[in-house]
Amino acid sequence: MAQNIYDTPEFFESYSRLDRQARGLDGAPEWPALRGLLPDMRGKRLLDLGCGFGWFARWAMSQGGASVLGVDLSENMLARARAETADHRVHYRQADLESLELPRAAFDAAFSSLALHYVEDFPRLVGQVFRSLVARGHFVFSIEHPIYMASMRPGWLATDDGGRTWPVDHYAIEGPRVTDWLAKSVRKQHRTLGATLNTLIEAGFAIRRVVEWSPTPEQVATQPSLGEELDRPMIALVAVEKQKASRAVDLESSRGRVL
Amino acid sequence: MAQNIYDTPEFFESYSRLDRQARGLDGAPEWPALRGLLPDMRGKRLLDLGCGFGWFARWAMSQGGASVLGVDLSENMLARARAETADHRVHYRQADLESLELPRAAFDAAFSSLALHYVEDFPRLVGQVFRSLVARGHFVFSIEHPIYMASMRPGWLATDDGGRTWPVDHYAIEGPRVTDWLAKSVRKQHRTLGATLNTLIEAGFAIRRVVEWSPTPEQVATQPSLGEELDRPMIALVAVEKQKASRAVDLESSRGRVL
Repeated sequence: MAQNIYDTPEFFESYSRLDRQARGLDGAPEWPALRGLLPDMRGKRLLDLGCGFGWFARWAMSQGGASVLGVDLSENMLARARAETADHRVHYRQADLESLELPRAAFDAAFSSLALHYVEDFPRLVGQVFRSLVARGHFVFSIEHPIYMASMRPGWLATDDGGRTWPVDHYAIEGPRVTDWLAKSVRKQHRTLGATLNTLIEAGFAIRRVVEWSPTPEQVATQPSLGEELDRPMIALVAVEKQKASRAVDLESSRGRVL
Repeated sequence: MAQNIYDTPEFFESYSRLDRQARGLDGAPEWPALRGLLPDMRGKRLLDLGCGFGWFARWAMSQGGASVLGVDLSENMLARARAETADHRVHYRQADLESLELPRAAFDAAFSSLALHYVEDFPRLVGQVFRSLVARGHFVFSIEHPIYMASMRPGWLATDDGGRTWPVDHYAIEGPRVTDWLAKSVRKQHRTLGATLNTLIEAGFAIRRVVEWSPTPEQVATQPSLGEELDRPMIALVAVEKQKASRAVDLESSRGRVL
């Protein structure tokens, strides 16, 4: 069972006030880059893992999506998502991503925003997403970047010249990282970027794009605090595509050699 | 024209005494992992970019390789490589990786060890390697990890609890990094890991494996200084495969959407 910090009142209150929750997708500075990785939404049956307040589901339908299944652990989040979504082609379902079961070949594309770094058994979830997608189906997600998450004492360090630097330690030591973010003892799961990509490849996905997100000059001009993201990435964006069966079999047969 | 630090006497002397040069591949702790990414050498026509003293060429021939072309900028390195390689199926060629031209479909696999992070125009070189490989040809290489290279002041920082942490800053700012390593003002080229992978994908390669190298427990027991590599990766290993033409065309046609 995953930690459900989102249903503690203290966390939920602060979380709801974040720009990216109060203003939706446009309050997330990485959204233009993430949106650029998505396939055309028209006619697509969509899956949203960690759907929160349903911002993505409503946006996808506004772009011509055929349907959306939004999954989240938090009843608080889902209650608000349901209240704010007036579209019978959008469904919300309470489930833990650690044990989620998905139907076969039911979706054309899967999406997730800043949720998968809470998942402990990532290979299991990736296997579920793979089987739930049609051939050539897309999976596009953002996660907290492992550079941001690795250290046992994350936080900017001052440098002698008046600048800042970000600490990286324990990078190769995968597993839980506990931080205080909006609430005490939020538990995330650190994985190397390589491990994330290799898990996707082993499941049968082809890597389409890996973006260690940083702001554009225009974004920094408008919101100077984003300049930090030039020094170290906080968010990684990944776009992959389900291979046709033949390719997945090729990878399977060569795995012994690759490992 | 790339910087040719290897032909300055001060650098060459110190470099030749490094474990990985004096002892060859077995002096490089990442070699077992890198070797595990390589295809079977038997009957393969091989390309080695930044071949140095020819250690890989001689190993590949011992494994049944059909031929090797080793390319390096340094005449000093090549002179020693030629002196130590008694095999007429191995050829060495002096060339700058910034301007190297390779024949079409001439190699079954390409290899490079810790050389490509000196190359400024990586997309150009990747394009040359792609055209020089046969369909389904492999390209396997190691580079300095961008986590290791990003900071303007690389070097361990002490933490309050007696541990160590590695500084990351300017990660999104790609371009030259100048450090003093064996000699003054060695110039390397920082690229994000995402940029390296996306360049390969855009050229038509499929990503097979990305390893942010860290030592095994046995390696740390034998050589405790390798424990540093658990805190931050110094080396990234990447294995890719040239797609069949149809796949490369697929990627080409979808590029507008991906970007």
